[in-house]
Amino acid sequence: MTAASLLRAAPDAVATAARRVMARCEELARVSADTASIERVYLSPEHARVNRLAAEWMRELGMRTWQDAAGNQVGRIGDPAAPALMLGSHLDTVLDAGRYDGIAGVLIALEVVRLLRVPSGDDGWTVPLPFAIEVVAFSDEEGTRFGKALLGSSAVAGTWNDAWWDLADADGVSLRRAFLEFGLDPGRVGEAARRPDELVGYLEAHIEQGPELDRAGEPLAVVSSIASARRFQLVVEGEARHAGGTPYDMRRDALLGASEAALAVERICSAEHHIVGTVGRFEAFPGAVNVIPGEVQFSLDLRGEFDGERDRVWDALARDLDDIMGRRGLRWRAREVHSAAAVFCAPLLQDVVAGGIRATLPTRSEAPPVIFSRAGHDGMALGAIADVGMLFLRNPDGVSHHPDEAVSAGDVAHGIRALAEAVLLRGTEPA
Amino acid sequence: MTAASLLRAAPDAVATAARRVMARCEELARVSADTASIERVYLSPEHARVNRLAAEWMRELGMRTWQDAAGNQVGRIGDPAAPALMLGSHLDTVLDAGRYDGIAGVLIALEVVRLLRVPSGDDGWTVPLPFAIEVVAFSDEEGTRFGKALLGSSAVAGTWNDAWWDLADADGVSLRRAFLEFGLDPGRVGEAARRPDELVGYLEAHIEQGPELDRAGEPLAVVSSIASARRFQLVVEGEARHAGGTPYDMRRDALLGASEAALAVERICSAEHHIVGTVGRFEAFPGAVNVIPGEVQFSLDLRGEFDGERDRVWDALARDLDDIMGRRGLRWRAREVHSAAAVFCAPLLQDVVAGGIRATLPTRSEAPPVIFSRAGHDGMALGAIADVGMLFLRNPDGVSHHPDEAVSAGDVAHGIRALAEAVLLRGTEPA
Repeated sequence: MTAASLLRAAPDAVATAARRVMARCEELARVSADTASIERVYLSPEHARVNRLAAEWMRELGMRTWQDAAGNQVGRIGDPAAPALMLGSHLDTVLDAGRYDGIAGVLIALEVVRLLRVPSGDDGWTVPLPFAIEVVAFSDEEGTRFGKALLGSSAVAGTWNDAWWDLADADGVSLRRAFLEFGLDPGRVGEAARRPDELVGYLEAHIEQGPELDRAGEPLAVVSSIASARRFQLVVEGEARHAGGTPYDMRRDALLGASEAALAVERICSAEHHIVGTVGRFEAFPGAVNVIPGEVQFSLDLRGEFDGERDRVWDALARDLDDIMGRRGLRWRAREVHSAAAVFCAPLLQDVVAGGIRATLPTRSEAPPVIFSRAGHDGMALGAIADVGMLFLRNPDGVSHHPDEAVSAGDVAHGIRALAEAVLLRGTEPA
Repeated sequence: MTAASLLRAAPDAVATAARRVMARCEELARVSADTASIERVYLSPEHARVNRLAAEWMRELGMRTWQDAAGNQVGRIGDPAAPALMLGSHLDTVLDAGRYDGIAGVLIALEVVRLLRVPSGDDGWTVPLPFAIEVVAFSDEEGTRFGKALLGSSAVAGTWNDAWWDLADADGVSLRRAFLEFGLDPGRVGEAARRPDELVGYLEAHIEQGPELDRAGEPLAVVSSIASARRFQLVVEGEARHAGGTPYDMRRDALLGASEAALAVERICSAEHHIVGTVGRFEAFPGAVNVIPGEVQFSLDLRGEFDGERDRVWDALARDLDDIMGRRGLRWRAREVHSAAAVFCAPLLQDVVAGGIRATLPTRSEAPPVIFSRAGHDGMALGAIADVGMLFLRNPDGVSHHPDEAVSAGDVAHGIRALAEAVLLRGTEPA
């Protein structure tokens, strides 16, 4: 491993690549289900449109392209018989999203391919690599449409669960029907799965989605692990009654119980060091101005660096909910809709990412920052079949999942360079 | 005034009338926008259908009928030149409603007409009355569709406000457009207004929508006043951010602020004797499982027997909201969407309702219960042009605005008899 740059690209080429990433992030932001905001969910017309754009951009680099059986867009370049180092991220978004979460990582991966290949096309790499490169634009990481995250990367990891077919979106459309309407065959989703021996590893660049790098004044970081996460769908049931006629001693107001629950999540999680808990969806029924809510449905997203700590917090919260609802004459139940153990990045890939950062920022005297990701990423699914490594880019003020989400062109240039260097460093090790 | 019955009807006729009310409540319950629940809102196809049914039932009693310029269905019987005693209630519902709120009052009024008129038709009253009788099925009392209650009765009271035309329903349809689509002319809504000299008074039977009569073991009560009410639409604004990447010290979570607000409503109102406050609508945006809510919109319904007490509670709550939101770095604002002063029932109409109850339940030794209505009623609007009186029917367990809302056929029979006796008693006074 060396801190000296192995990359032959001129600084100009990297700056041009970064400008292209920024421009394409803008172009993809316009592919939205909503004219006033960015919304691009799994198996939507917008999903099909960005896959077509990504495929064009892949082919322009001499890559062979295909849309896999779960709607992921894949491009491959290099020896068809060799295992592949997979680079990538996702192109789907949350509602009212920013421009860079996932998207920047896919586009950075394409620029890495551009920097490393011989410009004339099919003549291979400027530096010999013992593996092919694949770039994957995952189709569903956020779980916005069906409430289940990592659908695209789970298909690639071969961990698709047939129980998911009956998940429904807000309009009642099942995942199965959405597959058919998108032109995919539910019976063939298994064909998206890759074998471990086909892959050298999975490397992803992503904005941090948190403030740590910005606070530390650092443009890039090595990711040590991806947080453990559990998601629950909770229901609180009381009794819908007339808002005027029902005195306080006869009320069983589901909204008040659920409000206490949301505050309990904050109280219990914020007392821990490495846990965050968020109630993001929250709906009261019947939702009329003059009716006491008889039911509230809400989501809980729990994340932590360690599975055990996260599970202890859930247990403590469940005891609190028993108390709150018991006191108020309410019933509650929870259904776990997502559970992912913490994924630790492979030491070799942490090393090559660190080496890539050092080669990119040669005047730094200290080792690059190493942080854990509180946000989930496609690597959580890919960990089932491949070593996973991640590079984080500074995210000003840590604003993400919001229209103001940002990354600077300068940091994107650093990120492209560092990921390219990391790929080259991985190339000096056995495939 | 006398406690002896003036009514010539046989007990059998009253029991038959009560059975007809119960059966028609079932029939109207099937006129719903939703197959699984009762939902019938202003200016909907269901509104048109129940008006046609009510008109048929009115004509069957020899009444002259018309749908007024605000979609209220009216029937009239008696001397065309005389002022009218108006009976009625409303046929619109909340979402997931019960079968009796409003509906029972309209149907009871029709049975009163049936009991009092000469069965052969146009030959007038069995007992001479110095006024005509009108039955009105008000078109919008609940305010379910446009968030503004009492639209139908406000039009009759001549207190329609042109600012309401731009109110929009959940699909963005304005009240103006809904009028046109229903076949009404917004420019002619003033024609629904009645002059005070056309009316002798307004008498309404209604289920209690509260538990007081049920707890006291009483079937009927005189209403002393209709609660003062204010409704607000509140917005709490924070910042939508990534649920995983944002540590607690950077969160400005609108849901947590709004949850504290809902609990503050409960704490402040329940400390008072005559106030109830309810948060019925509550929506978090963007509403994604992995995004911290950046905005919450919720409703507040405040009711009290006295306007001053209600206003002091709102002031105290506003101070609390300033504290809560200031501490959390959130902004909040409130828009008042409804304000109605308490309406006191006219002493003469309270007396005739009390006399009606005594005539119906002659073995009672004590005076009938007198209670104030925490729920709003069309009489709040009618108070602007006429004396108002109300008769409450026992409502088992006080369940209202809910599919389990109930009233017994026996209590409906008592209610029909008592309202008919009250009309006769009013007839012994000058018109």
